[in-house]
Amino acid sequence: MPLTRDVRLTVTQTSVLTTDGPGSAARFTESAMQSAMQIDGDMCLDATLRWLAERRETYQFKTGLIPFAEMDDWYFQADTGNLVHRSGRFFSIEGLRVRTDYGRVAEWEQPIIHQAEIGVLGFVVKEIDGVLHCLMQAKMEPGNVNVVQLSPTVQATRSNFTRAHRGSRTRYLEYFAEPGRAKVLVDVLQSEQGSWFFAKRNRNIVVEVTEDVPPHEDFRWMTLGEIQQLLRVDNVVNMDARTVLSCIPFARPTTAPRPGPHGGLSAALRRSMSPGEGALHSMGSVLSWFTACAARHELYTERIPLAQVKGWTRSASQISHLDGRYFTIIGVRVEAGSREVRSWTQPLLAPCGRGIAAFFVKSIGGVLHVLVHARPEAGNMHGVELGPTVACTPDNYRGLPAEHRPRYLDYVESVPAERVRFDTVLSEEGGRFYHAEGRYMIVEVEDDFPVTAPEGYRWLTVGQMTQLLQHSHYLAVQARTLVACLHCLW
Amino acid sequence: MPLTRDVRLTVTQTSVLTTDGPGSAARFTESAMQSAMQIDGDMCLDATLRWLAERRETYQFKTGLIPFAEMDDWYFQADTGNLVHRSGRFFSIEGLRVRTDYGRVAEWEQPIIHQAEIGVLGFVVKEIDGVLHCLMQAKMEPGNVNVVQLSPTVQATRSNFTRAHRGSRTRYLEYFAEPGRAKVLVDVLQSEQGSWFFAKRNRNIVVEVTEDVPPHEDFRWMTLGEIQQLLRVDNVVNMDARTVLSCIPFARPTTAPRPGPHGGLSAALRRSMSPGEGALHSMGSVLSWFTACAARHELYTERIPLAQVKGWTRSASQISHLDGRYFTIIGVRVEAGSREVRSWTQPLLAPCGRGIAAFFVKSIGGVLHVLVHARPEAGNMHGVELGPTVACTPDNYRGLPAEHRPRYLDYVESVPAERVRFDTVLSEEGGRFYHAEGRYMIVEVEDDFPVTAPEGYRWLTVGQMTQLLQHSHYLAVQARTLVACLHCLW
Repeated sequence: MPLTRDVRLTVTQTSVLTTDGPGSAARFTESAMQSAMQIDGDMCLDATLRWLAERRETYQFKTGLIPFAEMDDWYFQADTGNLVHRSGRFFSIEGLRVRTDYGRVAEWEQPIIHQAEIGVLGFVVKEIDGVLHCLMQAKMEPGNVNVVQLSPTVQATRSNFTRAHRGSRTRYLEYFAEPGRAKVLVDVLQSEQGSWFFAKRNRNIVVEVTEDVPPHEDFRWMTLGEIQQLLRVDNVVNMDARTVLSCIPFARPTTAPRPGPHGGLSAALRRSMSPGEGALHSMGSVLSWFTACAARHELYTERIPLAQVKGWTRSASQISHLDGRYFTIIGVRVEAGSREVRSWTQPLLAPCGRGIAAFFVKSIGGVLHVLVHARPEAGNMHGVELGPTVACTPDNYRGLPAEHRPRYLDYVESVPAERVRFDTVLSEEGGRFYHAEGRYMIVEVEDDFPVTAPEGYRWLTVGQMTQLLQHSHYLAVQARTLVACLHCLW
Repeated sequence: MPLTRDVRLTVTQTSVLTTDGPGSAARFTESAMQSAMQIDGDMCLDATLRWLAERRETYQFKTGLIPFAEMDDWYFQADTGNLVHRSGRFFSIEGLRVRTDYGRVAEWEQPIIHQAEIGVLGFVVKEIDGVLHCLMQAKMEPGNVNVVQLSPTVQATRSNFTRAHRGSRTRYLEYFAEPGRAKVLVDVLQSEQGSWFFAKRNRNIVVEVTEDVPPHEDFRWMTLGEIQQLLRVDNVVNMDARTVLSCIPFARPTTAPRPGPHGGLSAALRRSMSPGEGALHSMGSVLSWFTACAARHELYTERIPLAQVKGWTRSASQISHLDGRYFTIIGVRVEAGSREVRSWTQPLLAPCGRGIAAFFVKSIGGVLHVLVHARPEAGNMHGVELGPTVACTPDNYRGLPAEHRPRYLDYVESVPAERVRFDTVLSEEGGRFYHAEGRYMIVEVEDDFPVTAPEGYRWLTVGQMTQLLQHSHYLAVQARTLVACLHCLW
């Protein structure tokens, strides 16, 4: 439904942040300002990277591709062809039938990961020397190109969680599970990749503890500033950590913007963090636009047996699309050099080609705005979520006519280096995806880039995105990674 | 996941309402203060009821039960047994398999209405003599006990809507469809009955026009105060009108609270409308609690062919549960006395027994709080939404042990009349449900009713519910009706 651009809704507006004692938002910002650079130059960053390398060395995890028949506890159900675990838990690979009036393909079928359980992605934070520190984990995930990456304190499925009452195997879960152990600072359900997951949600949660936390060699306390530095290094901060980072509401920094050539961007970004300041569209107008986008397109999805999925084929070792596009489903065996650690097998989804995800940013009236794109994805509960300006796997479009390429893809692929403010290759969830990398970019567009956005696109401030991130299902997972990246640019 | 009750999240808080010119929230409140009572005593109310009776008389609609075989365009699909329309549009009756750890039944199957289309429930409003008036429709719906009720200006499915571009049959749809024709004041997707609908959503929207609106005998301009008066009359204001009413953000009235015995309630209610004022729980804490409720229980649902649904049986004229509980699916033929109006057939869902839905309210520190209940419903997209303190169909529990009865049902069934502040029988959506009535009550509990709420329940202010209603999927449809009713008690 088209709406005029000047609508002004009578919705309530955000204007202040709640405080608890000294104010969590301000404390988060203070922690982000404390980067390793400031403390020890690059030494601290290097030390963290060495620690990750050392954890990698200790466990000696190896992930090898295996035929499906060699998977221990996974099998294809006789009637449906779905790939399931013998316990009926964890996740399954099923089929999805999609019908939509959005985009160039009106109907298709595809395999999809079905995981109805809500997981916990949790940061334990604690004030150390007056500054909030996050307890970060060096975590092995079989799909990671480099095996071990930096993850939240806890990544636990509901199965882990309920098992906790009979004695937990998930370290530090008690801070999330036991009433009164910790103070909740952030707590919201968020979606994951809608093209690969059916209706997947995780609880993004940050809890603050004051008690002594027993140390463990796989875990390290870091400021948010240190994590943000690591976020600029390829394949270090994992997807689960990035989504939790994106949900943290930062107060606008009170110190002077960073000096140097990008001081203008830094100043505009900081202004953009103040709720309501200088936004091109009121929050009411943004919500109405989102509603209109959600109502504009049809998206009918139906779970179907994997065996019925048309256009895909299954061999002894993979399920793949007939054109070789999109992704394959494979089986892997994970083994560790260290004897105490069990070995296991599982399926993974392996994308065909590296993804690209970019935010276009632009100062409008001195306030940084980000061009988001409302688009339906098959597996999303609500159909539409707000994604990056560009988000796709370019290889999926090879050999297709130019008009089939996503809007702005050519722009981003040819953008001059001096416009690129952030450019890092980051991994998607290594517990479900195999070597799934994306190039995450923040591009400052030229001054005469149009302020008028095409249908389905809208310029938002960072403060508006922060408000939306208090609720589920507004910002898609790639956009959340880019929000976390934006906060590296203060 | 249990959380301490004193969590304080660093989420942004609402403190002001946006204004457009004189401020829509204030203008909505002004319109609500203009009731027929004040203008003409009961005469105006009676005139509206006479108009509804006269519309009923003019069209002479009759709805008769028919065997399924006599339905013109509906049939049971050979392979699935689903009850579908020949066009493949509108809605269908399918099966749903549910597995949950919530409540006393861990697994069941049931028929469910599947309607993937997002409909529009729209009010056209216009300032007349300086006061906002809503263009309300006298609308026939086949399932209504009294055939014609008061509905929004537009109730249109997406099929209606897209057809609009080739010449609309839905009157006044152009104000919602054509850019620039009207100013959007409210615009949010909301869910409907999760026990009867699978993932149904409608767009609740209010648009303001300034141009002349051509009159039609089925439509009448009314202030919000007049509609609120009609809401106290049994089976007059339909469900679609009530849900739109609930999404309207009212500013706190600036006039003196009403005199009389319930002046205390009125004053506490008005204080409760101010965002953030005197709330027992911060908004951050409410959102975290909601997240925890959503994550606490498992709810797995799977659409299955209607023919496979266990525990239900199909005769020539109805699909019913083997115990005679819950609801039946029936077929009806609709005919009008007036020759110009077409006749048609369709299925409807007929609940077995009248529902009951009650808000318990209590002044806490002089601010009215409402006890909401977070509970999963099978057809809800998110699993959990916030419902009334009590919401059930008591007949579903007949013959069952007392411990199976919903919490607070005995309380509400035996509450002294002097504690009941609102008590009206209202109809659910008459386009899908047959003779589906609910008794909607607002009960002011005694002073020593516990402030400590049981697990899954929480005391919210009216202002907090208004904030949540800016977003989808927080308040369930029965709770939204009760929010609309609460606003009759200023």
